[in-house]
Amino acid sequence: MGKIKRIGVLTSGGDAPGMNAAIRAVVRSAIFYGCEAYGIYGGYQGLINGDIKRLRSQDVSNIIQRGGTILKSARSTEFRTEEGRAKAAAKLAEHKIDALVVIGGDGSFSGARLLIQEHDIPVVGIPGTIDNDLYGTDSTIGYDTAVNTAVEAVDKIKDTASAHNRLFFVEVMGRDAGFIALRVAIATGAEAVLVPEIDTDITDLEHFLEKDYDPKQSSGIVIVAEGDKAGGAYNVAQKVGEAHPEYDIRVSVLGHMQRGGSPSAFDRVLASQLGVAAVDALMDDQKSIMVGIMNKEIVHVPFNKTIKNSKGLNPELLNLVKILSNR
Amino acid sequence: MGKIKRIGVLTSGGDAPGMNAAIRAVVRSAIFYGCEAYGIYGGYQGLINGDIKRLRSQDVSNIIQRGGTILKSARSTEFRTEEGRAKAAAKLAEHKIDALVVIGGDGSFSGARLLIQEHDIPVVGIPGTIDNDLYGTDSTIGYDTAVNTAVEAVDKIKDTASAHNRLFFVEVMGRDAGFIALRVAIATGAEAVLVPEIDTDITDLEHFLEKDYDPKQSSGIVIVAEGDKAGGAYNVAQKVGEAHPEYDIRVSVLGHMQRGGSPSAFDRVLASQLGVAAVDALMDDQKSIMVGIMNKEIVHVPFNKTIKNSKGLNPELLNLVKILSNR
Amino acid sequence: MGKIKRIGVLTSGGDAPGMNAAIRAVVRSAIFYGCEAYGIYGGYQGLINGDIKRLRSQDVSNIIQRGGTILKSARSTEFRTEEGRAKAAAKLAEHKIDALVVIGGDGSFSGARLLIQEHDIPVVGIPGTIDNDLYGTDSTIGYDTAVNTAVEAVDKIKDTASAHNRLFFVEVMGRDAGFIALRVAIATGAEAVLVPEIDTDITDLEHFLEKDYDPKQSSGIVIVAEGDKAGGAYNVAQKVGEAHPEYDIRVSVLGHMQRGGSPSAFDRVLASQLGVAAVDALMDDQKSIMVGIMNKEIVHVPFNKTIKNSKGLNPELLNLVKILSNR
Amino acid sequence: MGKIKRIGVLTSGGDAPGMNAAIRAVVRSAIFYGCEAYGIYGGYQGLINGDIKRLRSQDVSNIIQRGGTILKSARSTEFRTEEGRAKAAAKLAEHKIDALVVIGGDGSFSGARLLIQEHDIPVVGIPGTIDNDLYGTDSTIGYDTAVNTAVEAVDKIKDTASAHNRLFFVEVMGRDAGFIALRVAIATGAEAVLVPEIDTDITDLEHFLEKDYDPKQSSGIVIVAEGDKAGGAYNVAQKVGEAHPEYDIRVSVLGHMQRGGSPSAFDRVLASQLGVAAVDALMDDQKSIMVGIMNKEIVHVPFNKTIKNSKGLNPELLNLVKILSNR
Repeated sequence: MGKIKRIGVLTSGGDAPGMNAAIRAVVRSAIFYGCEAYGIYGGYQGLINGDIKRLRSQDVSNIIQRGGTILKSARSTEFRTEEGRAKAAAKLAEHKIDALVVIGGDGSFSGARLLIQEHDIPVVGIPGTIDNDLYGTDSTIGYDTAVNTAVEAVDKIKDTASAHNRLFFVEVMGRDAGFIALRVAIATGAEAVLVPEIDTDITDLEHFLEKDYDPKQSSGIVIVAEGDKAGGAYNVAQKVGEAHPEYDIRVSVLGHMQRGGSPSAFDRVLASQLGVAAVDALMDDQKSIMVGIMNKEIVHVPFNKTIKNSKGLNPELLNLVKILSNR
Repeated sequence: MGKIKRIGVLTSGGDAPGMNAAIRAVVRSAIFYGCEAYGIYGGYQGLINGDIKRLRSQDVSNIIQRGGTILKSARSTEFRTEEGRAKAAAKLAEHKIDALVVIGGDGSFSGARLLIQEHDIPVVGIPGTIDNDLYGTDSTIGYDTAVNTAVEAVDKIKDTASAHNRLFFVEVMGRDAGFIALRVAIATGAEAVLVPEIDTDITDLEHFLEKDYDPKQSSGIVIVAEGDKAGGAYNVAQKVGEAHPEYDIRVSVLGHMQRGGSPSAFDRVLASQLGVAAVDALMDDQKSIMVGIMNKEIVHVPFNKTIKNSKGLNPELLNLVKILSNR
Repeated sequence: MGKIKRIGVLTSGGDAPGMNAAIRAVVRSAIFYGCEAYGIYGGYQGLINGDIKRLRSQDVSNIIQRGGTILKSARSTEFRTEEGRAKAAAKLAEHKIDALVVIGGDGSFSGARLLIQEHDIPVVGIPGTIDNDLYGTDSTIGYDTAVNTAVEAVDKIKDTASAHNRLFFVEVMGRDAGFIALRVAIATGAEAVLVPEIDTDITDLEHFLEKDYDPKQSSGIVIVAEGDKAGGAYNVAQKVGEAHPEYDIRVSVLGHMQRGGSPSAFDRVLASQLGVAAVDALMDDQKSIMVGIMNKEIVHVPFNKTIKNSKGLNPELLNLVKILSNR
Repeated sequence: MGKIKRIGVLTSGGDAPGMNAAIRAVVRSAIFYGCEAYGIYGGYQGLINGDIKRLRSQDVSNIIQRGGTILKSARSTEFRTEEGRAKAAAKLAEHKIDALVVIGGDGSFSGARLLIQEHDIPVVGIPGTIDNDLYGTDSTIGYDTAVNTAVEAVDKIKDTASAHNRLFFVEVMGRDAGFIALRVAIATGAEAVLVPEIDTDITDLEHFLEKDYDPKQSSGIVIVAEGDKAGGAYNVAQKVGEAHPEYDIRVSVLGHMQRGGSPSAFDRVLASQLGVAAVDALMDDQKSIMVGIMNKEIVHVPFNKTIKNSKGLNPELLNLVKILSNR
């Protein structure tokens, strides 16, 4: 592998706040190292279509604070085929792009791996997803912001819950993982949290709420991850409501607002660090790795490892919800 | 009617940000005029139950910025009966409370009217509801905050809509009125707005979106009021999606978070003005009126008028959405 | 005057949140009426320099929520000369721009008036300044946002003031006018407010604080407008501190953050209305006027009137601060 | 040492967002372990004065989201004397309080150490200070919130800086440490950062700005820590302005707002963890330690160590500012 001169960058999969900060860091550190940077618009599909534009330093000015991604994101069924990836590789060759930085989740990294194997193009991944469910990094870009967004929404809901002594079931994002739900539950002082990783026992929940929520004098919040096995906030609320018709129950599904908004300071710093680290890694002849942060240190994790493994919830945090909701 | 010495204050109906600022203003202006102030906890039901406590000046310190209501709110079926209202009047007599300030919507004012008619107790109302659907005042307390909360949420949704070129149907509060929906639509640059006051023609909407939303290169937002006749955001989205399977559609229902949160500066000032105006009105021997604000002036509106009449949307604002969404 | 085909738009003077929303409304309504829109970059100086670019509908997509101004702003000493204005007029002619919309304050409108008089170019003004000190409109674009920004900052300061029983003097913007200071004082429950319109009597203030602030058990906030005659927050704090060495006094000058940030819903709607109204006015052969909003209606105010007259503070609001700070 | 039955908790030194979340966690976990919890109001001075009140579970409801500290904080010169500490110990004995949790910084821990040595009272410390300058913990309570508050303020300043191509010197808190300044600089994409830990070379800064800031077409931000050796934002701005009279320079000192506001999700979770960990440590017969978090694990750090040692800035983060500001 010769020296890298041109680095392409794309965002893939669900967008996350902080992706723009990562793009900026990739572009500016590429330039810092004497390379040219190229933005690929619309994820892998955009790569196949050749939707590629050179990015200079000023093109990424004033984007560090913006949600979304200036490079847009999209799903590509074509990239899942060998032909699609061959087209993608051809487009990279056409633009003389030597290496790629992919900002996304494990689906995006699986695609990257095939591109590397079939066309020997160095790719480094940056973990960008609000769900935080990527092995090999303590935090993913967007997670801290999404948690703060959900916490601010639940704070508002608590105002009205408290005014009416209501019990709210609030659904937060997390199809496969309860990271968002767990932090939101602790940070909002919720009565309980339901996560995909643990089978929900509705009877247990009911017993717990009987001790903790008194519709005559208090309000309550239960945080439910989207992917909870008991079926989401509406289903859980219905079951609890059937057992306790005297409860004044409401449901709120926070939805897509959790994906947007100006990134938190934490996510901006993390994205800046990982963006530089990704280019560093390419300069050091790395390929097929994700850069992550573990115990404050930059780490390199083989794509294979981050795709195959999964990260568990901290059991001590689960325990915290119980200790702190006692009344 | 002799001179008023003790003024009771309660919040009733759905809570709204700024109610605490209004409570503070009632309490402090009552004290300013040499009266005592009493907080009645839990709306009319709390009054029947005698859940009444004297409020001194420092009891309302540091609440101007809080959402919800420190006096809580609740529905009371008992107050809808003559017996219930007789009990309420007896509790007022027991605490030597001469007059009442009720912060709420037209349902609350209807109850107040019966109390006045049956027991000759002076009551002055303060318009507190996020929906803004009260005749006789340009703004109700909580409306400006709810609009800002919804706008901030839609701003976040726009980030992710734009990253994926998606079309979002966002449902905001407003069962009977489109005030929130209309302002949110203008303030977020939405493509279209659906309100209860106007019958929604889905075919029209589809034609409009065909010109305005291109799933290949742009995103779109349609704001739907909860009480829209076409059946809410999910129903409208489904119909549009059936006609246009190529659209990448998502739905978000903002829900109860719109009721909470720290009140905006506008709502705090309005609540402060109206709280003082309500006590002023009682000092001037008024009863059975709502205080409101019209063209920057405090006005007195008979309960009867505000209950029987309704306020319409500004047609020029409806037109603005169309002019400004053109692309 | 023939029919207008090309409309130029510029922002001038201090920037204000909502200017982008106004630019968007001017551009899109110009296009709606069959005209072309041109952005002039860098205020009057940019006009003299010919820094002009056509703006299409999509060029103003996704800017309604952004603070600052995409057209930038700058002072121009050259435009104050007849030669400068002649150059400006020549540039407009060169680009076949028939009419101008100027978003700014009264300094900007004075310049516009000379351009109209000397070169017969129709100009309509839009009031954009956080200070709200423009005659002929109830609100200027940016005022509501600036007040909310300052209120949120003072809320934070109150947290720490309260933790330490401190007395804070907080300086807000307003060199010539106390509009921001007055609303901020009411909305934050401040003990007192000092504004340029009223001579500050420090002895009075001290007497007032003696009753209201007890360093052993309470905190206090005094809001000081930048242009207060007693010399700003630092000077006032020093004088009060000399008389009361037992007070635990701190000063905070909120500064330029009050000019930025995403505009409030109110400012976005106002800017949208005024932007359309400005183009409407040009279509109706108006020139040399500012569009404003009075009692919810769009009004046309001759530049001459808005420049020569000034708007006073609402004395009832000044009185509110006193009534509500009583403890 | 017998079994602990009553735990006192106080906040000391400068307040920090998240202190209330820590108080709540101490109270609820104390109750969870079968103890009683006592709030000591006004720091060590309040302890000497016997300003002590039992706190039950519901007394700390709905405070997790509040800035400031419900227990207030104050300096105590009396506690620095042996007599003062003897009085404090006597008050603890009088209320049968067996152990103390102190939330504060190293000054507060020094005081605690003397109390332990002289009166053998177990004390566990929780790091609460926005400055993050405590050895033995990756983060202190309040730091993340303060950084976010400063970042949001600088985002607003950037809007107006950008509208006028201005160079802003923004001063953030940090008398002895640059932690806040450094993170804020990275997160806002600042041109440069000045911290107390590194001697500022104004000539270097000037050279750097000459490359990076062009008053004709760009804006710039320099973040200055309060304790920077070159003398704070005003002094630095003046020196740079003298060398470059063509620069359009402004200064903003963010001030005390950085201490307040609703804590971020991170700070709430951290405070909850450390609050429980502090009670856990007392249950495990610990004394004279601070609980902290290192690499996601709860750690116990002897007071002596945390007082004597100091924590350094991450040099890689300092380097990031340089790499990423290149234009």
